Amino acid sequence: MKTDAVLAIVSGFAGSGKGSVMKGLMKKYPEEYFLSVSKTTRDPRPGEENGREYYFVSDKEFEESIEKDMLLEYAGYVGHYYGTPREPVEEALSKGKNVLLEIEIQGALKVKEKFPDAVLLFLSPPSAEELKNRLIGRGTEDAETVKKRLKRASEEAVGIDQYDYLVINDDLEDCIEEVHSILNAERRKTIRQTALVQELIKETGRFSEGE
Amino acid sequence: MKTDAVLAIVSGFAGSGKGSVMKGLMKKYPEEYFLSVSKTTRDPRPGEENGREYYFVSDKEFEESIEKDMLLEYAGYVGHYYGTPREPVEEALSKGKNVLLEIEIQGALKVKEKFPDAVLLFLSPPSAEELKNRLIGRGTEDAETVKKRLKRASEEAVGIDQYDYLVINDDLEDCIEEVHSILNAERRKTIRQTALVQELIKETGRFSEGE
Repeated sequence: MKTDAVLAIVSGFAGSGKGSVMKGLMKKYPEEYFLSVSKTTRDPRPGEENGREYYFVSDKEFEESIEKDMLLEYAGYVGHYYGTPREPVEEALSKGKNVLLEIEIQGALKVKEKFPDAVLLFLSPPSAEELKNRLIGRGTEDAETVKKRLKRASEEAVGIDQYDYLVINDDLEDCIEEVHSILNAERRKTIRQTALVQELIKETGRFSEGE
Repeated sequence: MKTDAVLAIVSGFAGSGKGSVMKGLMKKYPEEYFLSVSKTTRDPRPGEENGREYYFVSDKEFEESIEKDMLLEYAGYVGHYYGTPREPVEEALSKGKNVLLEIEIQGALKVKEKFPDAVLLFLSPPSAEELKNRLIGRGTEDAETVKKRLKRASEEAVGIDQYDYLVINDDLEDCIEEVHSILNAERRKTIRQTALVQELIKETGRFSEGE
């Protein structure tokens, strides 16, 4: 990539509010962010729209995307496929937009292999107890799904140290600003400013030759 | 270290304003920062005060500090010794304060060996031309010193990619806020929040055991 744009992978416990944080960034800084929309074979939930929350596709269509190498990563979760379309991500980065990917850890690590400069953020409620309350309190899922989520949370927690940043979502607005601030800081990394570094080396080199 | 405090090493071209940025951080956020004061064997410049800009010591005293392992790093520059006292740095970090070290690249890399989580920031004027103007324009040094500095700048530029962050100092206030923001972001790194990560693992582990 020629720009300093950041590929940001956001994971987090179910109930960590990661979806709201992503939407908040898109709303507050529409020029700076691109939100990747995943493909999935699961059914839409009430209120979800094709192309907004997900591209809802058939198993057959999903498997074609895999075969044609059109996905940055894909994984199965609770019996369904989820995957990240490659082209929109690469296009947004080339335009200098930070890309937001909301995926879980296996996907995050796969993308990190392909984009070593990707930044991995994990979102969490302020405590495990609060997490449990949020998972149960949402009330849109049956007991079996809640149980699966609690188990999933314990599996996810073990992977947190593979993330670069752990961000606590206590207040949504604060959390949006914190993620924004982290990504701004990332843009100052020398690895993202190689053109400027090269220019400084070249120009100061002329000084020492006595100009 | 048990805290999430950051050991921040700030380098930069002479004329990059790194001293003013450090002072600005100390003034605006006195509770959050500790500015390490180096020992040096060079003479004080007009307006400099012992214990504020530097501890001005004799060659003999400096060499004793080396022998007694009281310095985190030390180096020679333009015929004088410069070194970082170890104890105040460790004490400030243990109290949860970010520590600011203003040292050059050799020292920075030596400290990074001892504190792998140290964050290296390099400050630069917005362009090499502006750098040259600032070096010459300060007008407090003779031609020979200016020439040495220009040469030094070209040597320093080659090392920039060993720093974590490159921060442009165009406007002092903006630069202070940018460094502050970078260090706040650093505090969200998972490597600095191991206690919280362990707590989340432990607590969510209890969920999956059916509690």
